[in-house]
Amino acid sequence: MNAANELTIWTYDWVPEGPRGFVRDLRLRWACEEAGLRYAVRTIPFDGRETNHLAQQPFGQVPFLQDEGIEIFESGACLLHLARKSDKLMPRDPVGEAKTSQWTIAALNSIEMVTVPWWFLKISGAENEGITGWVGKRLDQLERVLSEQEWLVAGRFTVADLLMADVLRISAVRSFGDRPSTEAYVTRVTGRHSFKKARADQIAHFERGDQQRASATAHNSNHSLKE
Amino acid sequence: MNAANELTIWTYDWVPEGPRGFVRDLRLRWACEEAGLRYAVRTIPFDGRETNHLAQQPFGQVPFLQDEGIEIFESGACLLHLARKSDKLMPRDPVGEAKTSQWTIAALNSIEMVTVPWWFLKISGAENEGITGWVGKRLDQLERVLSEQEWLVAGRFTVADLLMADVLRISAVRSFGDRPSTEAYVTRVTGRHSFKKARADQIAHFERGDQQRASATAHNSNHSLKE
Repeated sequence: MNAANELTIWTYDWVPEGPRGFVRDLRLRWACEEAGLRYAVRTIPFDGRETNHLAQQPFGQVPFLQDEGIEIFESGACLLHLARKSDKLMPRDPVGEAKTSQWTIAALNSIEMVTVPWWFLKISGAENEGITGWVGKRLDQLERVLSEQEWLVAGRFTVADLLMADVLRISAVRSFGDRPSTEAYVTRVTGRHSFKKARADQIAHFERGDQQRASATAHNSNHSLKE
Repeated sequence: MNAANELTIWTYDWVPEGPRGFVRDLRLRWACEEAGLRYAVRTIPFDGRETNHLAQQPFGQVPFLQDEGIEIFESGACLLHLARKSDKLMPRDPVGEAKTSQWTIAALNSIEMVTVPWWFLKISGAENEGITGWVGKRLDQLERVLSEQEWLVAGRFTVADLLMADVLRISAVRSFGDRPSTEAYVTRVTGRHSFKKARADQIAHFERGDQQRASATAHNSNHSLKE
């Protein structure tokens, strides 16, 4: 069905409605769409995800990527891998590569490292003043950067913008304070056709998962009736 | 004193005693020591760090790296940059490079992203059960990996081990539960000569900062006496 060396994004077969449009395979779909890279999407079962693919992803998460014999997890690492395949995702000069790597990791380790725990505490009703202050400070610092430049690297879209915008577009983060340059940036980056296609494709993928689960349930209850 | 194109690690001129031996310039010193790369260390003032070097590091942190006209921040990105300069830090084949990138980012985004907020909440007396459970789960998953392999990538030391061990050696993280393979791993990686040298050099650097601050204070008080 798909050749062993075809670029393949692995994700779950199904997730509940809440995370649809946010599961991180979207980052890889989006990068492939930007770069015009052909890719297949394959799945592991959501049920049993804690242990059913630890050989591919030791933290039991998705996505992971297969590419010509290379298997790689961590969406940030997958993005840097894809970025080396296309200059649409990263400039080819050493300064451009270093800055793309820098801002990709900043999205993960300077922004997401504070926004994810903050959001986790917030939804569990345990918001912490220190963590909230930390998020505000980092977002202010980023606002200053984005008030001076349209893109993070070399005046053009890169995979670092893709990742930073994906981290920032979470609605709780997006509505945390009034930061007009950041808001304009998120609108600009997520306004790209490739983002919209990747998001729509992911949502359709999980909707097909709904149908498969429904028919599996119907099958199982027919089977039960016969017993 | 140092040529413009010399490899230069930037850090603070001084920090209080608590973080000495842990400031993240240590990661870059350690990598340079492992690779046998010559480097200079230069400083920005600790006082005023929130705003005195935003052009170099928009979050007001250290370290950042200069290398032949490239300026780069985020310790993880600096490590990946250094890794491309020496096969002592990363294998040269595509699989080895992808796996080094994967585990470097896993150290930052799957482990440090939970340990840092956990530790922050713990020291501020606001420990949260959900975050604590999350840390335990991730460390258990990593323990399983480290019970099966001595190094994270290709059966050999890489910059991913350097970073993972640096994240795990924080005493609160190290004493979080009984994980013998992880403990043996941290002991093994931080037992390397290059780590010990980098740590001793950093501590000596900040002790020289003590002396400079003491003589500046003495100078200022002499000056005050004359007025």
